[in-house]
Amino acid sequence: MGSGTFITFEGGEGSGKTTVIPRIAARLEADGFETLVTREPGGVPSAEKIRTLLLSDEEEELDHYTEVLLFAAARRQHLVEKIIPALAGGKIVLCDRYLDSSLVYQGYASGVGIEQVREINLFAVQNWLPDRTFFLDIPIDVGLARIAKNAREENRLDQKGRAFHEQVRHGYHFLAEEAAERFRMINAAASSAHVEEEIYASIREMLY
Amino acid sequence: MGSGTFITFEGGEGSGKTTVIPRIAARLEADGFETLVTREPGGVPSAEKIRTLLLSDEEEELDHYTEVLLFAAARRQHLVEKIIPALAGGKIVLCDRYLDSSLVYQGYASGVGIEQVREINLFAVQNWLPDRTFFLDIPIDVGLARIAKNAREENRLDQKGRAFHEQVRHGYHFLAEEAAERFRMINAAASSAHVEEEIYASIREMLY
Repeated sequence: MGSGTFITFEGGEGSGKTTVIPRIAARLEADGFETLVTREPGGVPSAEKIRTLLLSDEEEELDHYTEVLLFAAARRQHLVEKIIPALAGGKIVLCDRYLDSSLVYQGYASGVGIEQVREINLFAVQNWLPDRTFFLDIPIDVGLARIAKNAREENRLDQKGRAFHEQVRHGYHFLAEEAAERFRMINAAASSAHVEEEIYASIREMLY
Repeated sequence: MGSGTFITFEGGEGSGKTTVIPRIAARLEADGFETLVTREPGGVPSAEKIRTLLLSDEEEELDHYTEVLLFAAARRQHLVEKIIPALAGGKIVLCDRYLDSSLVYQGYASGVGIEQVREINLFAVQNWLPDRTFFLDIPIDVGLARIAKNAREENRLDQKGRAFHEQVRHGYHFLAEEAAERFRMINAAASSAHVEEEIYASIREMLY
């Protein structure tokens, strides 16, 4: 699996992934590690085009199964072009969302079924599972209140209702229990300094 | 599976699918049946966009696994938007290529593996397998000579070498044996009138 370390970050809206990841990267770099901070589709041209298809608001409605396949295709290309080379170069890869997002959003919350979506994603990633996955857990109300404060662009996923976000959270709890060896659940309602410290300590422990 | 009849046509380069399909449709229409002649991506906007990604010759190379997922995504959307509604309306759907093309081209000839590609495609089509699949079988040299005579646009698949086309043919023979209940192997080196007659007779027999 290359000589690097593959770390993914998962969590619902407002969980603070985007804030904490660059801070963790900066600390690891200061410690002398090389890092790659990325998120799907990661600037990979074909993956960006697939993402554009997925998030566009045109009249044509994409079927849920089509969505699963397109997310998996973008994931695959991002993995092959960016993540695998970085791991081969010994870097610590910090990736904002990965296959667990599909299991939870498409598989669990949209109702396609976790097992079917897992099959598709295991095909897409083959053996490239994360060494560790941090799930930033936050109560729905706290997360949504955080988002409302920021003027973020809305996309299809943000427009879903509260019940959907509850399903997402349940889905993550299910996965965190099922794959306990790689998942670490982080209380993301704590201060961002606290969240950062907990994740940093966990990664440092992995690296020794 | 709806009240219509779902028929697919498979075969390598120069096998004559594109010529025979509209002739079959015309005869069935003359017999009083309603038909839909289609081929992936079938004018479905999102499927067309996916296809454009797949066939473009830009510098970025698509990974084989990415290709499998993208073909399956385009297939799914075409199925949902065009094939299923036509079958529900009682039509005879005549589709130029379907999941068997992926099993053979991506699974068998490109080396991803038929079983893995089948899993992805069974996810994409769920229970919507063809009622009958005509495989237009032709020796590689005869097929390629036919293509050379026509000024066709080249795309990635046409550019592959002879060994690849041999693999494709072997793959189809394997599938035709494995799924003998729905496959009918047609000698496509015969005259186009003969090929047409054989397929038409087989369909008429199914419909009674």
